[in-house]
Amino acid sequence: MDSGPVGAGPARPGAALEVLGWRDGHIVAIDQTALPHDIRMLHLTTVDELVDAITRLAIRGAPLLGAAGALGVALAARQAQEQHWAEARLAEAVKRIGDARPTAVNLRREAEAAAAVIPGGAAAVEQAALAMMAATVTATHRMSERGARFLRQACGNAPLRIATHCNTGSLACLGWGSALGVIRALNTDHGVQHVIVDETRPLLQGARLTCWELGQLGIGHYLVPDAATPFLISQGQVDAVVVGADRIAANGDVANKIGTYSLALAARQARIPFLVAVPESTIDPATPDGVRITVEQRPEEEVTHVRGVPVAPAGTRALNYAFDITPADLVTAVVTETRLITS
Amino acid sequence: MDSGPVGAGPARPGAALEVLGWRDGHIVAIDQTALPHDIRMLHLTTVDELVDAITRLAIRGAPLLGAAGALGVALAARQAQEQHWAEARLAEAVKRIGDARPTAVNLRREAEAAAAVIPGGAAAVEQAALAMMAATVTATHRMSERGARFLRQACGNAPLRIATHCNTGSLACLGWGSALGVIRALNTDHGVQHVIVDETRPLLQGARLTCWELGQLGIGHYLVPDAATPFLISQGQVDAVVVGADRIAANGDVANKIGTYSLALAARQARIPFLVAVPESTIDPATPDGVRITVEQRPEEEVTHVRGVPVAPAGTRALNYAFDITPADLVTAVVTETRLITS
Repeated sequence: MDSGPVGAGPARPGAALEVLGWRDGHIVAIDQTALPHDIRMLHLTTVDELVDAITRLAIRGAPLLGAAGALGVALAARQAQEQHWAEARLAEAVKRIGDARPTAVNLRREAEAAAAVIPGGAAAVEQAALAMMAATVTATHRMSERGARFLRQACGNAPLRIATHCNTGSLACLGWGSALGVIRALNTDHGVQHVIVDETRPLLQGARLTCWELGQLGIGHYLVPDAATPFLISQGQVDAVVVGADRIAANGDVANKIGTYSLALAARQARIPFLVAVPESTIDPATPDGVRITVEQRPEEEVTHVRGVPVAPAGTRALNYAFDITPADLVTAVVTETRLITS
Repeated sequence: MDSGPVGAGPARPGAALEVLGWRDGHIVAIDQTALPHDIRMLHLTTVDELVDAITRLAIRGAPLLGAAGALGVALAARQAQEQHWAEARLAEAVKRIGDARPTAVNLRREAEAAAAVIPGGAAAVEQAALAMMAATVTATHRMSERGARFLRQACGNAPLRIATHCNTGSLACLGWGSALGVIRALNTDHGVQHVIVDETRPLLQGARLTCWELGQLGIGHYLVPDAATPFLISQGQVDAVVVGADRIAANGDVANKIGTYSLALAARQARIPFLVAVPESTIDPATPDGVRITVEQRPEEEVTHVRGVPVAPAGTRALNYAFDITPADLVTAVVTETRLITS
């Protein structure tokens, strides 16, 4: 670490890209599969296009999926109004949006919340969706400040070395971030020495998206293979682990990107904090525990190939669970916009 | 897992490739960086070429590195004889071979053992190196059978689902294998349901080499991202973890490919066996514990790129520890050609 990590220094200008928005009756979004080497905007004018974008992870991240669910229902309501859809067809579109990915609870929840406004007309659904998005941004700011205070109390005032997994920044959350939001809030106070970024196989959201965001923000960071972080933790090279989540069950079990569980095991072994930062909307009282969370299985090609390049012999079978479950007893604290939950 | 994994079925013919050998006074070896999509043989006629092949992992795997160390000294002795090297120059060549990679103890140990024969002339060194290679093959057979018996006793007689990491087959060990040797021995007895193969980032030895070997052998397997295996273990989808090692310290701490430690943590949490299979030559009484093992750090580009394709923004810094240390208390048993060591 002689010459210091890239990204340490002042934030670069021009970082403000519209991650997800509503323009002239359609959805605009960055295609997150193309980042960081290609900045490509999607213009989604139908529910089919949105569901496809969500399925192939062009739009991803639990809070962003919530916003996409609400905007998707606005899109469906507009299509229904213009094309005189029967009520059942609109209801089926709402369901398809909510079902596009099974693990993140925010998607279905915000789609259903927006759908409740449908009787008021398409314009009312748009307004409701935009209000939910604004609330998400406010929530991530609040949880970030609370999370940073927690880490200060748990780890002291020296600049911290924080490990994180997947992407939980403005790309995942609109504007600020959940776990990466906590890191940003801490950094505002010069509280970050550097971030250890898990690459997050198979789809490399850490390498592609988190390194890109941290570079834009001027926060120092090192990329590592996922399975290296438990070793770094064991060697005293990490002060805390901070991650987001896709769903937290009523008993506190956490579903998050595959690879999270081993970080929690290593954090407990080393007695460092394992903090989960989420909006309240990610906590799902209707799911009693982690056993009841549906873990999405995705195409095998995501594992047998990396960015389109084959990494295994032709015909190799793969298992591709997109998420894992971290039992509540491995979680030091969950921080949301309204509270800090410790066990 | 509906249609079953690829590889289940009879072994394919033509699997016998010369992984590492001695021919007409030079070393022949498969270039393991090119597998599985390209089968390319190296012909190494100088110490410089051998050191380069070891450094870039064209020749890798602790037992194979031992054999390469011994053959390397045979090559050096032959160069010295033909080119009338001074004694100091030959000694320096032996040291360079032994130092080519720092973590695997076998490389230096077998280079030094071969060097002890130098006073007898180049032909004597060749004979000693070939004898050491034959002994390694015999050792891996014996440890494999002992390891398979251990798993049968620990896990019962139903076909087992075994997780492994990196590559420990004939490519790593000459002819049979260490951890993969245990799996092969178990499979001879119809004792393997399937193998969970960690892809082993950054250099993907699991995806590229272990899947290839298992396919050749007709043993069913699934490829997974490294950080997925702890989750599979937690879900009761793995009966035992079997790995090799690059060095075992006197106190039982195990240095092995980065990613091993998190498998050991998950195995202990799930109370399944974590077995390490090595030749006796990998146990190093001169290293008291894991803290004293030098962990090689390799080029950052191995993390920021996959098979030459960039996966992170340009300029991203990375940490690339090639190995991690698993404390002895997480190891259920170490099996060698002469004994079973349990704690």
